[in-house]
Amino acid sequence: MGLGTVFLSEVLGTGVLLLLGAGVVANVLLAKSKGFDGGWLLINFGWGFGVFAGVYIAYKSGAHLNPAVTIGILTSGADEFAPGVPVGVGSTLVYFAGEMLGAFLGAVLAWLAYKPHFDETPDEGLKLAVFSTGPAIRSYTWNLVCEIIGTFVLVFVVLALGKTPTQLGPLAVAMLVVGIGASLGGPTGYAINPARDLGPRIAHALLPLSYKGTDGEAIGKKDSDWGYSWVPVVGPIIGGALAGVIASLAF
Amino acid sequence: MGLGTVFLSEVLGTGVLLLLGAGVVANVLLAKSKGFDGGWLLINFGWGFGVFAGVYIAYKSGAHLNPAVTIGILTSGADEFAPGVPVGVGSTLVYFAGEMLGAFLGAVLAWLAYKPHFDETPDEGLKLAVFSTGPAIRSYTWNLVCEIIGTFVLVFVVLALGKTPTQLGPLAVAMLVVGIGASLGGPTGYAINPARDLGPRIAHALLPLSYKGTDGEAIGKKDSDWGYSWVPVVGPIIGGALAGVIASLAF
Amino acid sequence: MGLGTVFLSEVLGTGVLLLLGAGVVANVLLAKSKGFDGGWLLINFGWGFGVFAGVYIAYKSGAHLNPAVTIGILTSGADEFAPGVPVGVGSTLVYFAGEMLGAFLGAVLAWLAYKPHFDETPDEGLKLAVFSTGPAIRSYTWNLVCEIIGTFVLVFVVLALGKTPTQLGPLAVAMLVVGIGASLGGPTGYAINPARDLGPRIAHALLPLSYKGTDGEAIGKKDSDWGYSWVPVVGPIIGGALAGVIASLAF
Amino acid sequence: MGLGTVFLSEVLGTGVLLLLGAGVVANVLLAKSKGFDGGWLLINFGWGFGVFAGVYIAYKSGAHLNPAVTIGILTSGADEFAPGVPVGVGSTLVYFAGEMLGAFLGAVLAWLAYKPHFDETPDEGLKLAVFSTGPAIRSYTWNLVCEIIGTFVLVFVVLALGKTPTQLGPLAVAMLVVGIGASLGGPTGYAINPARDLGPRIAHALLPLSYKGTDGEAIGKKDSDWGYSWVPVVGPIIGGALAGVIASLAF
Repeated sequence: MGLGTVFLSEVLGTGVLLLLGAGVVANVLLAKSKGFDGGWLLINFGWGFGVFAGVYIAYKSGAHLNPAVTIGILTSGADEFAPGVPVGVGSTLVYFAGEMLGAFLGAVLAWLAYKPHFDETPDEGLKLAVFSTGPAIRSYTWNLVCEIIGTFVLVFVVLALGKTPTQLGPLAVAMLVVGIGASLGGPTGYAINPARDLGPRIAHALLPLSYKGTDGEAIGKKDSDWGYSWVPVVGPIIGGALAGVIASLAF
Repeated sequence: MGLGTVFLSEVLGTGVLLLLGAGVVANVLLAKSKGFDGGWLLINFGWGFGVFAGVYIAYKSGAHLNPAVTIGILTSGADEFAPGVPVGVGSTLVYFAGEMLGAFLGAVLAWLAYKPHFDETPDEGLKLAVFSTGPAIRSYTWNLVCEIIGTFVLVFVVLALGKTPTQLGPLAVAMLVVGIGASLGGPTGYAINPARDLGPRIAHALLPLSYKGTDGEAIGKKDSDWGYSWVPVVGPIIGGALAGVIASLAF
Repeated sequence: MGLGTVFLSEVLGTGVLLLLGAGVVANVLLAKSKGFDGGWLLINFGWGFGVFAGVYIAYKSGAHLNPAVTIGILTSGADEFAPGVPVGVGSTLVYFAGEMLGAFLGAVLAWLAYKPHFDETPDEGLKLAVFSTGPAIRSYTWNLVCEIIGTFVLVFVVLALGKTPTQLGPLAVAMLVVGIGASLGGPTGYAINPARDLGPRIAHALLPLSYKGTDGEAIGKKDSDWGYSWVPVVGPIIGGALAGVIASLAF
Repeated sequence: MGLGTVFLSEVLGTGVLLLLGAGVVANVLLAKSKGFDGGWLLINFGWGFGVFAGVYIAYKSGAHLNPAVTIGILTSGADEFAPGVPVGVGSTLVYFAGEMLGAFLGAVLAWLAYKPHFDETPDEGLKLAVFSTGPAIRSYTWNLVCEIIGTFVLVFVVLALGKTPTQLGPLAVAMLVVGIGASLGGPTGYAINPARDLGPRIAHALLPLSYKGTDGEAIGKKDSDWGYSWVPVVGPIIGGALAGVIASLAF
């Protein structure tokens, strides 16, 4: 398979993942939305079924949708990223690029879907939360630990899936993501995917999101929280790499 | 297969879809119902399992249950709507007619199931919400955008399902609908299906729904909100057509 | 297969169905329970997974677990109730007897599991609700209509399942029951099964459930609501019979 | 297969089970967590998907993850614990040891993931609840009855699964655990697994968990509730053994 196909596949799949993932957060957090205050389990299912939809769409490229998964496959010593896509520097970069662009575009689409609700939400922090994760208690060390653990579970189980004759396909990954969100999402909002967090954060920085009062002046101050932005990138990279190494030993 | 069989199959399947879909909204919104105020996720699962039941019932006709799906199959360039049902003007109209009639009848059945609760609910807006969708923030442009995006995801993933060896069958579509509702239902209540919205709106206009006070005079004024009614028809048609075109290029 | 095996299989399967089904209601309604006030969706999943467990257990007898299913198979004109179990008067009665005894025993087990919580719950109505259904708005005509519609959906889809190559097995029935509960459970609490309601109502009448105050006198007055008890028996019988007839025409 | 492989497999699987299971309780109970007060169904899904993940990981050893399952297989008279692992005293003890060590380690990982939230939670009872179960109403007799019943359902259905051609694999066990939690978790918090409760209780006793005030003195008094600790060990052993015996007669 050509790397152009891989790229397009990852863009589309990660795009729909972020559209649904950012969408459910918008539904729960933004003013006047029908799912306002709908609870943590709603958010977990929204992201889980976002993965579900994205995996079907990106079936040609093996549906990584996540640089941590790409890295875990690398460190597990596999020969191929997907049937017909050999592991290599070039293919790795194509996966990363598709995942990042897809995540960026998906977040922009979610913003379009919820445009009137963004306009009526004064709190800038809630708007950022639609795009990117943030810590419940800021502690870079422990936030990093939490992202490492969460991503480890994701990638480790995904690699185990490849060894078992499951017939659930994308549903297995979806349910796994629901479970990680339910169980390990409390401290950091479970990025567990560098592209999922960084791509939308760039979108947040570029989009016109400051709140304007009734006479047009900006009230809320937009802050993309770049100080935290390395945590949901570095943590998942470490967690995914670790999972690949341990999976190559254990499975 | 004869087109009469297709028609009956779509009537039955879309009928049960609307019975369960309108039913869960009645359960959450109408006075004294046991699921009153049960939350957005309950509504999402109600519609998702409504699709689930409808797809099993309409297995003979390929279970479109939705003109946007029929249109997406058309624009994707497929030869058949279902095994043995060639694409054509006549078959397209038969699908549309079956979907519309089924949606109308299903909403009437949901009204019968919740009859005492309709009678004890004074708010006419809540009654309409059992039948048809409405915007959280009225903005025809952005409401249309939201319905286009939501329906695009639905039809695009449904077309991807046909390319992958999933063994989940109707469960995959059901979970997809739960996910779209959780993530993209906040602004407009996710019609994502012209028949789902228009058929029950006609039922709402025809049924005796105005609230009567203790001495028999009408208190609530029935309003089927025809001003909004084109949005959940046009949006899904555009979204479904777009999904078919892009699927024919991407998959 | 011998009818003794069928009987035992239905007793065990319906027993676990009622244990889990009555259990989730106890969890949500009884004083001091960890799932107290856990919401309608929790109740729906509890009953759905109760069916799930019961269907696995009763695999030998085809897992009817419900006289309305037995009746629907009868009126659909099938030859066998399960592989190797011919339709007949004797086998029908064995299914009914197993379903009733299992439902009775399962409710008793749920009572044992929640014994201290029954003892600390003063409201007799809540205790009855653990065993049997009751109407949100008492109207025998409309309550009957609601039970007919709900059971029709259950049995009609179960009969459709037999025509499609689903590979979900018990999960399909479980999800269907979750959906019917979410969507059609609001008015009557979805008995949709004569044994599920009548067996536990008999248990309720026999068990020592009246609330005793601190000095030992009975405070709550036990009332098994026999006036309503025919609705969740007759409604499901009609709905199941109707589903079988229409399925024999439509599928 | 070597018993070292069995041991490692059970450690990894039970470790991830406890990481996700203890994690979801932490998410719902500990201060400032994003899933705080997220409800009983969230807890049920967290544990269910914890089982789901653990079963995939421990595929080599048959994924017991629970001494009650190991005992149930024993008393059912099976020849093998997993393909290639004969039943015997040595293999039984290896399963027990792997399950206990995994449960201990998983709870420690959950503590690391939620470290800042443990530090900001004053209530020592909530911290213990992350690790081990406790009764809603303390009554050793009835608490024991409840654990026996819950574990019986778990092991009985797991043994039924082995007799049916289900293609759901780990999803079936996950949904079963969601159902048992929803329905039978109210009185005792559904340990239904001696290792799940005892391993983390030992971790709780060893970890530095007492709450310190702003000037460093211990405020909360750590109490691992050893008085109750035998109930979630003895109950599941009895329930699992009973399930194996009855399964050997009924299936």
